[in-house]
Formats: sequence, C-alpha cells, structure tokens
Amino acid sequence: MGLSAFDHPFLSGLFADPDIAAFFSAEADIAAMLRFETALAEAEAECGVIAPQLAEAIVAQLAGFAPDVALLAEGVSKDGVVIPEFVRQLRRTVGEAAEKVHFGATSQDVIDTSLMLRLKAATNILTARLATVVAGLSGLEARDGQNPMMGYTRMQAAIPITASERIASWKAPLERATERFAAFAQTGFAIQFGGAAGTLEKFGDKGPAVRAALARRLDLVDRPQWHSQRDGLAEFAALLSLVTGSLGKFGQDVALMAQSGTAIHLTGGGGSSAMPHKQNPVAAEVLVTLARFNASQLAGLHHALVHEQERSGAAWMLEWLMLPQMVLATGVALQTALTLTTRIAKLGGEKT
Amino acid sequence: MGLSAFDHPFLSGLFADPDIAAFFSAEADIAAMLRFETALAEAEAECGVIAPQLAEAIVAQLAGFAPDVALLAEGVSKDGVVIPEFVRQLRRTVGEAAEKVHFGATSQDVIDTSLMLRLKAATNILTARLATVVAGLSGLEARDGQNPMMGYTRMQAAIPITASERIASWKAPLERATERFAAFAQTGFAIQFGGAAGTLEKFGDKGPAVRAALARRLDLVDRPQWHSQRDGLAEFAALLSLVTGSLGKFGQDVALMAQSGTAIHLTGGGGSSAMPHKQNPVAAEVLVTLARFNASQLAGLHHALVHEQERSGAAWMLEWLMLPQMVLATGVALQTALTLTTRIAKLGGEKT
Amino acid sequence: MGLSAFDHPFLSGLFADPDIAAFFSAEADIAAMLRFETALAEAEAECGVIAPQLAEAIVAQLAGFAPDVALLAEGVSKDGVVIPEFVRQLRRTVGEAAEKVHFGATSQDVIDTSLMLRLKAATNILTARLATVVAGLSGLEARDGQNPMMGYTRMQAAIPITASERIASWKAPLERATERFAAFAQTGFAIQFGGAAGTLEKFGDKGPAVRAALARRLDLVDRPQWHSQRDGLAEFAALLSLVTGSLGKFGQDVALMAQSGTAIHLTGGGGSSAMPHKQNPVAAEVLVTLARFNASQLAGLHHALVHEQERSGAAWMLEWLMLPQMVLATGVALQTALTLTTRIAKLGGEKT
Amino acid sequence: MGLSAFDHPFLSGLFADPDIAAFFSAEADIAAMLRFETALAEAEAECGVIAPQLAEAIVAQLAGFAPDVALLAEGVSKDGVVIPEFVRQLRRTVGEAAEKVHFGATSQDVIDTSLMLRLKAATNILTARLATVVAGLSGLEARDGQNPMMGYTRMQAAIPITASERIASWKAPLERATERFAAFAQTGFAIQFGGAAGTLEKFGDKGPAVRAALARRLDLVDRPQWHSQRDGLAEFAALLSLVTGSLGKFGQDVALMAQSGTAIHLTGGGGSSAMPHKQNPVAAEVLVTLARFNASQLAGLHHALVHEQERSGAAWMLEWLMLPQMVLATGVALQTALTLTTRIAKLGGEKT
Repeated sequence: MGLSAFDHPFLSGLFADPDIAAFFSAEADIAAMLRFETALAEAEAECGVIAPQLAEAIVAQLAGFAPDVALLAEGVSKDGVVIPEFVRQLRRTVGEAAEKVHFGATSQDVIDTSLMLRLKAATNILTARLATVVAGLSGLEARDGQNPMMGYTRMQAAIPITASERIASWKAPLERATERFAAFAQTGFAIQFGGAAGTLEKFGDKGPAVRAALARRLDLVDRPQWHSQRDGLAEFAALLSLVTGSLGKFGQDVALMAQSGTAIHLTGGGGSSAMPHKQNPVAAEVLVTLARFNASQLAGLHHALVHEQERSGAAWMLEWLMLPQMVLATGVALQTALTLTTRIAKLGGEKT
Repeated sequence: MGLSAFDHPFLSGLFADPDIAAFFSAEADIAAMLRFETALAEAEAECGVIAPQLAEAIVAQLAGFAPDVALLAEGVSKDGVVIPEFVRQLRRTVGEAAEKVHFGATSQDVIDTSLMLRLKAATNILTARLATVVAGLSGLEARDGQNPMMGYTRMQAAIPITASERIASWKAPLERATERFAAFAQTGFAIQFGGAAGTLEKFGDKGPAVRAALARRLDLVDRPQWHSQRDGLAEFAALLSLVTGSLGKFGQDVALMAQSGTAIHLTGGGGSSAMPHKQNPVAAEVLVTLARFNASQLAGLHHALVHEQERSGAAWMLEWLMLPQMVLATGVALQTALTLTTRIAKLGGEKT
Repeated sequence: MGLSAFDHPFLSGLFADPDIAAFFSAEADIAAMLRFETALAEAEAECGVIAPQLAEAIVAQLAGFAPDVALLAEGVSKDGVVIPEFVRQLRRTVGEAAEKVHFGATSQDVIDTSLMLRLKAATNILTARLATVVAGLSGLEARDGQNPMMGYTRMQAAIPITASERIASWKAPLERATERFAAFAQTGFAIQFGGAAGTLEKFGDKGPAVRAALARRLDLVDRPQWHSQRDGLAEFAALLSLVTGSLGKFGQDVALMAQSGTAIHLTGGGGSSAMPHKQNPVAAEVLVTLARFNASQLAGLHHALVHEQERSGAAWMLEWLMLPQMVLATGVALQTALTLTTRIAKLGGEKT
Repeated sequence: MGLSAFDHPFLSGLFADPDIAAFFSAEADIAAMLRFETALAEAEAECGVIAPQLAEAIVAQLAGFAPDVALLAEGVSKDGVVIPEFVRQLRRTVGEAAEKVHFGATSQDVIDTSLMLRLKAATNILTARLATVVAGLSGLEARDGQNPMMGYTRMQAAIPITASERIASWKAPLERATERFAAFAQTGFAIQFGGAAGTLEKFGDKGPAVRAALARRLDLVDRPQWHSQRDGLAEFAALLSLVTGSLGKFGQDVALMAQSGTAIHLTGGGGSSAMPHKQNPVAAEVLVTLARFNASQLAGLHHALVHEQERSGAAWMLEWLMLPQMVLATGVALQTALTLTTRIAKLGGEKT
C-alpha cells in the first residue's frame, strides 16, 4: 500500500477519493463480476439457453460467495487474467449447476463488463461533482463577478476585465464536459459479450437475444461485442483528461493570482516547515498536477488502441495499469476544485 | 523542407497528403486570416460599427493582397505572433480605411478563427475518406466475409471465426469516428472573437451581434470567446487519435496475418534492397506508426489545456507545433488504409 | 488498495514486486525521513552547529519513534507536504532538544533525500536483476545459440539467422542499461539539502560542511542543492524506461514466435476460461505492457522539468504520482523477464 | 512547406534553426547515404572483399551523383524505404562496378548510419550552443549575481535569495547536459552495419573487419549491428529532452518574473496587435513550449523501443516522424535561451 499516491497512508491527505476508489477495489471488481455471472445465468434462462432452475440455483448459491483471493492472485499469475480461477471457485460453490456458470462467456466478457458497470457508476459521481463545481463557480460569479481585475495575456498585464470573464473561462469547459459525459452515456457504457472469440458461438442464433437480456439486467447499453475495439475506452479517457485539463487551467490561474497576491484572497492553504507564515495555494497546485498526470496517461490509453487480433493481452493490461488512476485523478481534481472555490474569499476587486 | 516526414522530398512517398497539407500551408493560413479580416469589416458595417463604405473599401483593397512573408517572419520573431505585422501590411494596403482594419480584434481572434476555418474544411475531407474506407471494408466483407479464419487471442490461435468478424472490428470504430466528427461539428467549429482580453470592449453592447454576424459570414458556429478554453481543440485532437488508433489496429492485424501468410493475400507491398523477393506490408506498418504518432502527440495537446490567464503564449504555441501534424497523420492514415483495403486480394479462407 | 495494479489483491499475480514496493511504502518513506533527521542532527553536531548532547538526545529519543499516520495525512491535506506535521511529531517526541530537530532544513530536503535513499537501494536490486536476466540470456545462448531460426524484417521472413543473433538483440541493451545505472550512480544519488530557499541560510559559512557530513552519513553523493533542478530524476526515469523498453522488445519477439509456434518452445503460460487448451504467452505480453506503461510515464516526468522558481508544488507532486510506479514497473519487468527466460525450453531449431 | 512550425515561412521567426535543419534535409540525408556507400566500397577494398579498382570506380563515378528525387519518392511509396531505389540509381550511375555498390549492406545500414552521421554533427552544434548559453548565464551571474531577489516556493514569496542562486538553477542542469552529451559521444554515435538480417553474411569472417574499416572512415564508433536495439536513440532523445526541459524551467522563471515585473528587466520582447504598449516575454514562452514539445515526443521514441524481430517498419518509421523535430526543438531552444540571456538587462535588485 502506498505505491499510488491516490492510495497512500498520508499522501491521501491530498489525493484520496474514497467514493471513486471504492469502484476500483478488488472487492468492487469481484462484486461486479459476480453480478455479471448471475445476470448471465438469468439471461440465459430467460432466452431458453439453460433451465430456469439451474439459473435459480446459480443465483441462490452464489448469493454469499466470497472468493479465495490468494488463489485468485495465483490464477492471475498463471493465466494472465483472473477469470479461469474465479470461475473455478464459482463452479465449486454452485455444485450441480457448475457447468452452466459462465456458460458461453469468456474472460474479457466478464472483466470488460465489470469495468463498464463501475465506470458508469463512477461517472455518475463525477458528473454530480461537475454540477457542484459549476454551482460553486456560479456562486463566485454572483458574488464577485462585477469586480474589476487585470486581464493577462502572455503573462503580461493587458487590459482590465471583470472577474466574471475569468470565471467563465473556468466554468464553460466544465459545462461542456458535463454534456460530453451525457452524450457518452447514451451509447458508451455498453455490455461486452462475445464468447471465446467474439462470435457467441455457443448460443446459435440466440446470441443477440442473450446479450440484450444481459445488458438489460445490468442496465448497460446493448451492443455487439467490442472486445478488440477499444475506442470507447480511449474516448472516455479523453473526456476525463478534458475535465482535469480544464481544472488545471483553473488551478494555474489561481496559483498565479495568489502569487501576485492582489487579485484573489484565499483562505486555508498550506504551511511550510521552514516558513510557518506562508500560505501555499496547495489545492490550486494539485489541480495542475492532476491535469498533467491525466494528459500523460491519455497517451498510453490511445496507444492501447492498437489492440491486435481478437484480444491483445499487452494492450488490455495497459488499460488496467492506467485507466483506474485516471478516473481517480478526475475525482480528486473535482473534489479539490470544489474545495478551492470555497476557499476563494474574494476574487478581483484590486485596482487595475 | 524535410524536417517533417509529412513534408519531405522522398519520405513523401509514404507520408504525403497534399489535400490535407494544403490547409496548413502559410498560404492557406494567410488566406483564412484575410477572410477573417474582410468578413470582420463587413460584419462591423452590418452592425453599424463602421461605415459601410469603409468596409467596402477594405474588402475591395484587400482583394489582391499579397503579404511580404519575410516581414511576417520578422514580425513573428519580434512579437511572438504574426498578426501585428500582418495587420500593419493590411493597413498599409487599404490606405484611408486603415484604422478600421482589424478593428476590435486581437491576434488570437484571427489565428484561432483561421485554424477553425481550416480544421473544418480538413474534417470534411477526413470524413469523406472515412466513408470511403468504411465502404472498402464493406466491400471486403461482401466478398470475403464468409471465409473462415482462425481467431487469435493473446497472440495464440483460439477458435475459428469468419473474416466478417475481423472486418467488423476494423469497421465499427470508423463508423463511430464518423459519428463523433458529426457531433463535434455541431458546436465545435466555432468563431473565436473576443478582442484584447476577451471582452469585445470596443463594441459596447454590439459585441455579440458583431460576433454573430462574423460567424455567419464565415460559416462557423457562434459562441462566446474561448481563447483561453482549449477543450474544443483537445477534444478534436482526441477524435483524430481515435481514428488513427483504430486504423493502427487494422494495420497491426494485417501485418500479423501477412507474417503468418495464411489468412491474407496481399498485392503490392514493399521490396528490400537486400532481399528483392520480400513483400513487406508497408501500408500496414504505416498505420501502426501513425497510430503511435498521434497517441503521443495527444498528450501534448492535453497538456496545452493548462492555458493560463487570458492567453498563454506557451500553451498556444504548443498547439501550433503539434496539431497540424496530427491532422496530417490522420489524413495519411485514412489514405493508407484505403490503399491497404484495395491490396487485400483475399481475406481468410485458410484451413482453421 | 487496488487502485494500482502493482498493489492489487489479485492483479498482484502479474504485477506485484514486494522487494521494490517495500521502498515506496509509507513506512519506508517515514524510516528514510527519520534517518535524514537523525543524521542531520549528528552532522550538525559534528560541524559545531548544535551541541553534541542535543544531537545524541535527538538520536536516542527518536530511536523508537512511530508517527501518528492519521495526523500526517491531515497535515498533508493542510500543508501539501508531510514535513510540517512530521517535524511537529518528532519535536513532541524529543522534548527539550525539540527546536534543534530539522534545524536549518526544509520539506524538500527531507522528502527528496528520502526519495534518493530509496531510489539508490531500489537500483541495487534492479541492477542485480539485470545481471540475472543477462545471465539467463547467456544461458540460452550457450544452449541454443547455434540453432538456426528465420530472421524477420518488417514482419516478413527475411533470411536465416541463428538464435544467438536474436538473443544478442535482447541482451546487449540490458548490458548497456547496467552500465548506465553504474554511471548514474557515480553522481546521481545525491543529497538534497538547501534549507528554506536553497541557501542554507541558517548555517552561515558552515552550510557546505554540514551538507557534506550529512551526505557522508547517508552514503549519498554530496552536491549543492538541486531542489528546483529535476534533471537527475528525469534522467533516472529515462534509464528505467530504457530497461522496460528493451525488455518490451524481448517480450514482443517471444509473443510473435509463440504465435507462429515454430521458433520457440515455451513452458508454463496462461490458460483461458473459454479455451483451456491454450497456452498464452502472458509473461511476454506483460513485458510489452510495462514497456508502454513506462514510455508513457516518462513524458510526465519530463514535463516536471518545468519546475518553476525555488520549488514547484505542481511539478513536484507530479513526480510523486508517477515515479514510484515507474520503478515498480521496471522491477516487475525484470522479474518477469527472468521468468520468461526460464520458460524458454527451446529457441530456434526449426527448419528455416 | 509549413506543416512543421520549425520549417514554416513565417513561424520560422520563432522556430527556425537553419544550422540544425540543414542536417535533416533530404539533401543532407542523401549526401550522408552516399558517403556511406562510397566509404563502404573503400572499406571492402581495404579488407580484400572487392577489387580496389572497383572501389575506385565507384568512388569516382559517384562523385557527382545527383539523385532523381521524384523516383526516390516513388520508391519509398513502393518499398517503404528509400534504399532500393537509391541503390538502383547509384548502380545505374557507376556502370560496370554496379553489383559491388551497396555490397553486403541493407537498407537499415545506410539509413541508420546516415542518421548517426548527422546526429553526431548536430550534437556538436548543440554542445557548442550549450557552452554559449552557460557562458551567457555566467555573465549574468558575474554582473547581477549579488543582487537580492525574493525566493519563491510553491508560487509564494518565501525568503530572500540572491540572483546567483536562481541563475545556478538554470546553469547547473546545462553543465550536466554537456557532460551527458560528452559521455554519450564516447559510444553512442555508432556505425550500423549488419547486412540483410544483421549477420554480415556476405563477408564470411571478414565482416567485423569491414565494419571496423567503415566505422573508421566515417569517424563513427565501431559496434556490432544494433538495428533492432534502439536504446541508443531513445537515450539520445532523453538527453535532448533534458536540455529543453531545463531551459523550460529557465523560461518559466523568466516569464513569472516578467509578470510581476520587479525582479527582472527585459529588453526586446513581443508586441501585441491590440495592445502596442505590451512587452511579451516571447522568448521565455518559447522555451516552455519547446520543453513540453520534447517531453511529449520522448514518449513516442520510447514506445519505439518495442522494435520487433530483426527490423520493425512500424517502430522505425515512428523514429523518422519524431526524432528530427526533437533535435530541431533542442537547437531552437538553445538559440532562444541565448537570446533571452542577452535580453536580461537586470536580474534581481528589487526590494525583497
């Protein structure tokens, strides 16, 4: 514990986001994978692929399932993915109906769908926070918008503006980000279900019906398998980076104003071990940091678009290494931005 | 000439795209900036900001304007942007109406609007090419879709699929890319017009009307100034990288099939100076190269979101260095993908 | 726990590296920071800056120090760095000598020196592993080097080579990496000690002597403060990425050979939930993943070179988010490469 | 022309560097490739591989060789590399000795060695400029070093420092950069010579001798072929980014000082079309831009380390797209930094 600053005993003071982090714990992943497997059994029963009583048995017997995580880790080490061992444990749990657990599915179906379930839920939090930050900025605008302040271009005083103009440059991109997430949600949070190589070959002509039933039960968009089409994830990653980048501009502006000390009055802020009198604009700096973090990660997610053949282990695992922390960085940035708006005691109002 | 492979006397054999490159020449930029300045005069006349005859004089006298490019370069060297010297030359040209040239505008209005005009036109070409590549892939599907081929997961033979399933993984992301560009075009290609620090302060309450008239004349979306809100450009860059990344998967798949030599029959392809018998899948490789090129550039465009204050010289110039070649890379990738589809003499059909 | 795949209950099966991770735990950081503070007291006593009995008291009373980590997190939240609260806890512990704890130092001195102590120790492990992987490859060469295999250029069969030629392309970059780390270690693992703004202003003309004594006690290179000169860290990050990139080539080559199935015989390898018969070259894929992970992170570390003024919170925190996982990725890649060499039962020997 | 800002009719005002650009023109590449081919003939004669009179004929007849560049472009389009057509033209030129032109070499030998010859020469310019910038900073130090100025940490006034302390943070990384280039030059600028698949198979046991003779004639380091080992280039790219990143810190500091306007007095600087009174710190901004440009490109060069098999077209071409502009960016940054040092009329000296 502690490798990631987002998950660190004391750096958590700046970078923790328990609400978002909860979606990327092993527990949350296991719960979502379990939800997939039980919904799959139900969908298959609904479509006449397996007997209803088998689906019921699977659901009932998996209700209290708790995996042996050490064995899962061993399985990952051997297989490269957790599913073979996970399914082995599930099957051992359900007894008689064992062979119908995970019927017709493959590793990627479970793992990618679990990711989608959790990204969708995390996005709900992110968009709620976007609304709060936008509201916070609107509050600033209502209170201080008419205050004069110096406009700066190319880091030089240019001509006087009002605070509302500066605030608009922070708020408008967040409003657009909200629209982007809404548009993405229309089709983006989609079931992944294709079977061994994408053909749902175990279902004959019932494949699409099972997939639709499964999507409905999981409240995800129905769509043909996309296991080797990663554009949705790379697009989603870009949306995250657009949020953090826009907040990074907010942070950079605040830090610059705080430096000159005339255009903004901040409360809170960080101390220094050598200079106790200082008030460091820590929250503003964090926003710049997270903007650059996500901008760098985004490249990796787009390299992962070169996802060869029916399933690329290498490109897929790259997503595992990078995407969760991008979501975290976005969550933390929104939280931090909200804190920062509440710390702006006065914006503008200096002589210009 | 030759620094960029996209603009190189002989690497052009692989990386040239004259249709797209035309939008990023100095000539095209100058023409678009001139179009901005004359449309501005007309819009200002329309809104009663300047006398109609002054606008007519400006339009008439600038009709044959040809800049002194050496002086423009000198101006850029001194000012960091081309506009002060550009406007100086325009004003010298129009004589009496000189002071109404560029009235109320600033450098960024002209440069960013010129960019938008050209990105919009370039996107029209990109989307037309997307349609052609999709059609090419549909043709492959019609011809070879039923051919069996081996599906590969984690670079290992998995189970048999049909060629149509592989083709779908190439085609679907391109169809989605087309939709993304269409959605972006609704609001994305927008006028930039704000004056010195974004307030249109020279126009009193006529600012929004002038901006709307200008947008209409330039056939761009009307929107309040966004000169320090670069999320639109960063989003556009992501769309480009989604195209090249998806084509990179196509290229990688073809190169892998060409290596094993059973699942694809390619015509054309590159020779070797040491081994004249070889048929290198050059077009496929180019697609992978361009995918990784754009993925890397995308990070830079997202770092440029941290655009401080009313105008960041540093972040803005970073866009200048990176965005044109991203568009080129996308154009070349689409061209190359089309070539590649035409070189696939047969897909699948091997024993699986 | 689980945000980072390097630190995840079951992805640890592929990505865990307890030996390296140990250096990046909060505990290890605290231990190294404590070591800094006690060595500082001793160095200051040695140079006549503080009374020897005060140094002895500090060392003795901090011997069993255990921080209140929750308060540290709170401190980070408030101050942006852990040191103000950390020093507060230390001072509370030592009682009378309290004001001489951390005397003349600042946050960055402690945090950067702690990082250097741990990077140095981690590098010893990395270089030891490099030697093991090189030895493993030499073993392969001794056993299989004379085996013929097909050389491939541009993913096409070219002309026959021997296995030893392919092995050399894996081994030589690792030998150079070893030399690079050795060269870096000459000057790279350096004390950071500058005081509030880099001037050691509390020590009069004794500053350099205290710094030298401190460096000697910590077994680090003595060098004037570098707190706003991050080139050493960015260079180190590049060395890491050169290791993982070179191992990525090894992994990619093995995965390609495993696909065609003739030039390599692998033991072990991963199973599939849908296709139990498959042997996925998981270790090889992991190497490609980690290469692309570090290549992407490297950009972030180089963006952090733009470290403004005497201390940039934003750039510094970006290092915290990215560097530990780069070291981890390098450790895991070396481990995985060693595993992979042991799984190569035969290289080459096919008909060419 | 104009796609790259480094090679643009008017952006050249900021980004041109004719001295460095000269090495990356098609002409320079052709000249270096020709030098390879004639030196190869001489080395082969020296080692008794071809008759001396054939080597003499080749050298004599190629003395005035001028390629048909349009045919070269066509060749690149077909073959993916320029060499097959280039050699065809050479052979047509030399007549009788034709078959001994390029004997035993392959495309990558010529292209990579040409690159090395030019990188080596370009590096000589870069290191000369580094010395000039360091001298310029030393001059500032001599003149203004004792001036007091406010030290800033986390973008807040901290404690007074002297200008010499700030200057040291700009100068020391450049001195280290100079040492890094010197160390790299010991072994880094190396001949690439391996033949079709790296084995020099046409030379029997004379391969190493021919390579050594060739290296000596080209004044490059002799080393076994490295055509699929790209760590040297990725390391070199990192050295470039360390220079631009360190200069980016210089630029950022100057821009921040220029904003507050008290700690620095700059002459020159850019004007504004809307605000003629402004003095924009354009040179300082350019340094930040180029730092972020190279940091982003560096990731691409490190992705290219995953260079599969004996020659990866995809990874190799990625280097072609990215490395030349990284060298240019470094050249421009050094030039710009020198300009900036000469524009600093006074550093520090404000009340602190």
